[in-house]
Amino acid sequence: MRIALLGYGTVGRGVDGIIRSRVPELEVSRILELPDRLTDPRMTSNVDDIVNDDSIDLVVECMGGIEPAHTFIASALAAGKHVVTSNKAVVAAHFGEFAELAEKHGVAFLIEASVGGGIPWIASIEKVRRIDEVTSFMGIMNGTTNYIMDSMRRDGLDFGIALGRAQELGYAERDPSADIDGIDVANKTIISACVAFDVDCVREFPVTGIRTVSKRDLDLFASHGLMVKLFGRGVCKDGKYAVAVEPVAVPLMSLEAAVPSNFNLVSLEGGTIGPLKFYGQGAGSLPTGNAIVQDVLDVARGRRQRYDFSRGLTYEPALMTCDYIYRSTVNPAHGDAWAPGAWRVRNLTAESARRLLEEIWQQDATAFMAALPQEV
Amino acid sequence: MRIALLGYGTVGRGVDGIIRSRVPELEVSRILELPDRLTDPRMTSNVDDIVNDDSIDLVVECMGGIEPAHTFIASALAAGKHVVTSNKAVVAAHFGEFAELAEKHGVAFLIEASVGGGIPWIASIEKVRRIDEVTSFMGIMNGTTNYIMDSMRRDGLDFGIALGRAQELGYAERDPSADIDGIDVANKTIISACVAFDVDCVREFPVTGIRTVSKRDLDLFASHGLMVKLFGRGVCKDGKYAVAVEPVAVPLMSLEAAVPSNFNLVSLEGGTIGPLKFYGQGAGSLPTGNAIVQDVLDVARGRRQRYDFSRGLTYEPALMTCDYIYRSTVNPAHGDAWAPGAWRVRNLTAESARRLLEEIWQQDATAFMAALPQEV
Repeated sequence: MRIALLGYGTVGRGVDGIIRSRVPELEVSRILELPDRLTDPRMTSNVDDIVNDDSIDLVVECMGGIEPAHTFIASALAAGKHVVTSNKAVVAAHFGEFAELAEKHGVAFLIEASVGGGIPWIASIEKVRRIDEVTSFMGIMNGTTNYIMDSMRRDGLDFGIALGRAQELGYAERDPSADIDGIDVANKTIISACVAFDVDCVREFPVTGIRTVSKRDLDLFASHGLMVKLFGRGVCKDGKYAVAVEPVAVPLMSLEAAVPSNFNLVSLEGGTIGPLKFYGQGAGSLPTGNAIVQDVLDVARGRRQRYDFSRGLTYEPALMTCDYIYRSTVNPAHGDAWAPGAWRVRNLTAESARRLLEEIWQQDATAFMAALPQEV
Repeated sequence: MRIALLGYGTVGRGVDGIIRSRVPELEVSRILELPDRLTDPRMTSNVDDIVNDDSIDLVVECMGGIEPAHTFIASALAAGKHVVTSNKAVVAAHFGEFAELAEKHGVAFLIEASVGGGIPWIASIEKVRRIDEVTSFMGIMNGTTNYIMDSMRRDGLDFGIALGRAQELGYAERDPSADIDGIDVANKTIISACVAFDVDCVREFPVTGIRTVSKRDLDLFASHGLMVKLFGRGVCKDGKYAVAVEPVAVPLMSLEAAVPSNFNLVSLEGGTIGPLKFYGQGAGSLPTGNAIVQDVLDVARGRRQRYDFSRGLTYEPALMTCDYIYRSTVNPAHGDAWAPGAWRVRNLTAESARRLLEEIWQQDATAFMAALPQEV
């Protein structure tokens, strides 16, 4: 099978290396690169050289960003080429359009590498759904924020120091907003919900990151037997669904609390299978490259996953309701004292919890909030 | 696809229920049961009614035990029927023979449910191996012993009380030897090694259970930041491999230490994928039934996994070497004091560690041993 890569950054190089050294049945025959970086005879800076080349069966998009990735993926699908991508931003923005194009042109559109790096998360959801409904999912889906919170707790670092280390190690961008404000997790949550619930997931839902978390906050939760991590979550029940991204308090002695460094842990709950959890490297050249090559091998062996979002689920924020802890100089309305400087507000939807946090931020921009699910 | 069940205990009933309620493309048309339990028109007590019935495509064996399961599986494969089994004892004893029969008769032999219940462990190893070598695996593969050790630590119970509770809850048999002496884990370790390393794994290797662990032992390890769990492990390197079953000390703040109740957690390490860990229900009617139905669906969709053990790996115990802690009234040769009543012996193979434990047991039958891997 002949493959073209769109993009030759960390992930593209990983894919190229894995195929060359380990998968002789596949061949990377063209690579799209910028005009000033054409260092390999396979490279071109003109995407038409790839889309119009009938010898290419499959296009791997690993450029990142929304445009021109969106246009290139749509063109490749319309030209009858299978597409495999690791680009969560473009999938989250255009999943429905890509799925329809793939269906119309009888090709595969696979996205394993877009969530959880090397963890077989998307394929596992799909496999579970052959038998079960997926009733909920939740995941530590962002290695950067896990690294930050894990360093704050294990090594006693302040947020700024931990973020700086993450940047030194290449886990965080120079502008870390997409990670620490939860935008990256929001994209992965949209994609997970689309696959788990068969719905073209809403793009407007509560998203709160970890920008205001302090070492003292983690100490406070630890004194209650809890650790806080940033989660993407989804629930589906009776034809309705809800999603949210927010810090969540979990028991200190839980798998979630134990996830070290920049690893990911994603969980689902199915009707007969019960809970399943998957742990691994959520990013990096080789793990993400591995997930892409697995998708390519699936296509080579005939897999044609269809995504059909016509089930008509309704978005219902009330499905996701629990208690919330606010650490702030402001005492929120209906807040019960939980600890010095921290209040517990009962039975909020993720949406109203986020609105309340925004109100509190008007007076105290340092305030921090974490969900406290019933099970805790 | 028409299916026959051999056995209608917990797992068989789970398979029947899942297929009836969730998978209309499959049909359970015959069930082998004991003569005095033929309560359903599909039931027969004569296995020939199934093996000689050309309308049956696939046989699910969930009787347990070695005979007559071994004879029935071999007959079904020889009759050109696919076989799916959850029976770890018979697979561990006869994997090579079954694989050859399946190959010869062009049928599938699938074993997902034999290790880790509902966790997609076998399929995940196979998928990883499409790209990577699996260089090692380790797993909490027995829910009963995890329940016992987790209750001892979380609830401060003594071994006997925790075992009694496991028996009350139906997690442990009245004769708990197969669980607490590591025999069940040994079977699952053999099967995992066969699949992960492509070798007809040896049956003679070090197997130590948790029969002598005490609450004080767990407190002692906890004071060193460690928790002990019963693991099946395998390593493969340079054409050699080793396997062992023994208590292993892991960091208190690790996923392994956090595994609650009767859950399982199995891990592998691959060349490009890095570490992957899978968590879920390791037993039970619905999770195990789910794993069986997944295998049946794979067969229905054309999967013909081949197992070929001709790679010729050598069993090399020296591959598995680390320090060991012995808690005993006897000071073992070359033991350094580790804590009052406990010694650390450095750089033992799992085989010599087990031999040393047997020597110590001659004088102190209550002695307990745990491996202390380098990483800890």
